[in-house]
Amino acid sequence: VPGSEVDVTVGLTEDDFRVLDAGDSLNCARDKFDLQDESIYLDGNSLGAMPRSAPARLAEIARDWRTDLNRGWTEHGWLDLPLTLGDKIAQLIGADPGEVVAGDSTSVNLFKLLGTALCLRPGRRTILTEDANFPSDLYIARGVERMTGGAARVKAVPRGDLADAIDDDTAILMLTQADFRTGHLHDMAALTRGAAEHGALTLWDLSHTAGVHPVDLNGCDVDLAVGCGYKYLNGGPGAPAYLFVARRHHDTLEQPLSGWLGHEQPFLFDTEYRPATGVARTICGTPSVFGLATLEAGVDILLEHDITEIHRKSTALTGMFIRLIDQECTADGFRIVTPRKDERRGSQVSIVHPDAERFIAGLADRGVVGDFRAPNILRFGFAPLYVRYTDVWEAVTQLKDVARA
Amino acid sequence: VPGSEVDVTVGLTEDDFRVLDAGDSLNCARDKFDLQDESIYLDGNSLGAMPRSAPARLAEIARDWRTDLNRGWTEHGWLDLPLTLGDKIAQLIGADPGEVVAGDSTSVNLFKLLGTALCLRPGRRTILTEDANFPSDLYIARGVERMTGGAARVKAVPRGDLADAIDDDTAILMLTQADFRTGHLHDMAALTRGAAEHGALTLWDLSHTAGVHPVDLNGCDVDLAVGCGYKYLNGGPGAPAYLFVARRHHDTLEQPLSGWLGHEQPFLFDTEYRPATGVARTICGTPSVFGLATLEAGVDILLEHDITEIHRKSTALTGMFIRLIDQECTADGFRIVTPRKDERRGSQVSIVHPDAERFIAGLADRGVVGDFRAPNILRFGFAPLYVRYTDVWEAVTQLKDVARA
Repeated sequence: VPGSEVDVTVGLTEDDFRVLDAGDSLNCARDKFDLQDESIYLDGNSLGAMPRSAPARLAEIARDWRTDLNRGWTEHGWLDLPLTLGDKIAQLIGADPGEVVAGDSTSVNLFKLLGTALCLRPGRRTILTEDANFPSDLYIARGVERMTGGAARVKAVPRGDLADAIDDDTAILMLTQADFRTGHLHDMAALTRGAAEHGALTLWDLSHTAGVHPVDLNGCDVDLAVGCGYKYLNGGPGAPAYLFVARRHHDTLEQPLSGWLGHEQPFLFDTEYRPATGVARTICGTPSVFGLATLEAGVDILLEHDITEIHRKSTALTGMFIRLIDQECTADGFRIVTPRKDERRGSQVSIVHPDAERFIAGLADRGVVGDFRAPNILRFGFAPLYVRYTDVWEAVTQLKDVARA
Repeated sequence: VPGSEVDVTVGLTEDDFRVLDAGDSLNCARDKFDLQDESIYLDGNSLGAMPRSAPARLAEIARDWRTDLNRGWTEHGWLDLPLTLGDKIAQLIGADPGEVVAGDSTSVNLFKLLGTALCLRPGRRTILTEDANFPSDLYIARGVERMTGGAARVKAVPRGDLADAIDDDTAILMLTQADFRTGHLHDMAALTRGAAEHGALTLWDLSHTAGVHPVDLNGCDVDLAVGCGYKYLNGGPGAPAYLFVARRHHDTLEQPLSGWLGHEQPFLFDTEYRPATGVARTICGTPSVFGLATLEAGVDILLEHDITEIHRKSTALTGMFIRLIDQECTADGFRIVTPRKDERRGSQVSIVHPDAERFIAGLADRGVVGDFRAPNILRFGFAPLYVRYTDVWEAVTQLKDVARA
């Protein structure tokens, strides 16, 4: 990991960060995003930055709409975008071609796959999850519970109790790989294995890991997954999300949001639903072409780089940020709640402080964009494609100033 | 209705259509769309034409994304778009402010509202619909049926049997106002009244009527509705859809796709779901901003015109098309399956012919875009904002040629 060779006994200086930027194998990537040079944007885990190619993609779709009207669906591949873009996203998350579909929102996709899981594990009632999971994931699970009239029930337990809570009634273990508040990273392989030992499926939400972490769904034998398009995938405001279903489930896969584009032959307009082959049957309505186009712009940039390199830089940025906070801000009452162990840390650093909200506002005034998460968390996300090591230095310097102002 | 004064005893000539164009109160509207002058586009009920303002709207969102990044959600009103744009759409469908939300696909919205209906009518099991309803609507209803484990059941009957099939077990009568194949228009007021007499709710799919027909949801006491954004609303390929919930149901409204942006305070990231006030609780995930922006461009044009005028022209265009087919194509084996009664006809004319698919392809080669619907329907949609009366003349002339080639 870059930065690990910096001597910690003498203290970090701004020069150390300059040296790291100069040696950064990803330092050409920032230019692929349309960011102002002075922008220190540590909120790419909320909304990623804009790929320079995005406006041209939008203009291209508009041109095709104008010129070819309804023929665009076939002539410009719009109808196939959920699958063709899905295949690109698959490369980021350790999935195979034909296992990923892009479209809808993360929450809608979660609903589809929870419904799928209950069908794949008939007789089992429990949707097991972590009580600190992303709220929308919890809300959607409760929605499934209500809709099934109690045939499914949600069991939300603290992180430490998860492994023991898996039992023979568990249909699905639903978790978010990286905690949105703290950045804590679950052990996907171990938890998936634990679930499988009880015959339970797993559903991973990759919203805070895909694009920065070498997610390995098939390597971990994951069954189902969803993820967000507008965070580290840089797909733009409200970009479509995606879902994954492992190939071994494709033949028996059944999902509740059985819309027309998941039909085997949608243009027959048959009154009977016959699901398409494979993951395509998870498609519901007509694909949102503009959103998919900007998402593709973001995904294409990620595919130009090695996810291992991206992750190495993520670990270095977050590690250096933690070291610098330790060095510079000990007297300021900050408490880092993000795991210090590299292998347990997502691409963010979260710090607890009673004045978190005020400090985040103060930082924004100084051009450093982080995020406040109620009630008391300062959250800094590090998108390795466009965050510089000197941004870490500058952010901590400004944070110290804000805290002492 | 324009055209009704044309003397039918002497036969229609091209001049009649030129005269109608010259007197058309909407003839300034076509210029608001980016269409080639020679384009005869009779497929706006599949994908509407592009508003000239759409590319600038896309560029504006891209600029705001680049410049303001995550602040765009509040500073540029992105988060509120589902409701602000919903209020605009409400004006097109006889709804009040605060009753409509824009977002997701028509199918996803249908699922939400079928779930809502079952909650609003506990103890009732039947989702009653027409067997010729749009296939996706039928598929989604079956998805609801499966998800509830049979607590709900779909009953699909022929159009003529609908009124008699409503009974005290009917939770919801789900219909599409205009049939996508034939253009047959249901009597919304009568069917809604019939349902209410049995204590059943109604859910209308407005995909083929909103934007061309003066839909009057509240005037008809409709309970629930959904509609498509990319047909007569001209929202662009795969534009978000919308849904309507009558205000009287807002306090008790509960829907299964309870995502984070339907929460009363989404940014508290509370683990317990507390639904937002009113129709906002039907919002699920993060709004798709680019799609909503182009949809708004389309809706804004509609709001610049009087829906009564638009409907009058729709009736005239379809009526003149039918008269001209009767006059010119009697020998060609065409059978018009669209109702001849103005009040029963949507903004399309559908013609049955064994060679329908070949004829539609031949027309496309001659620059007249219609649509083929299996197995034997030629479908022509008339978007009054950009279809000219002379397009009717030209389309029929070309169709006659194609049929006799």
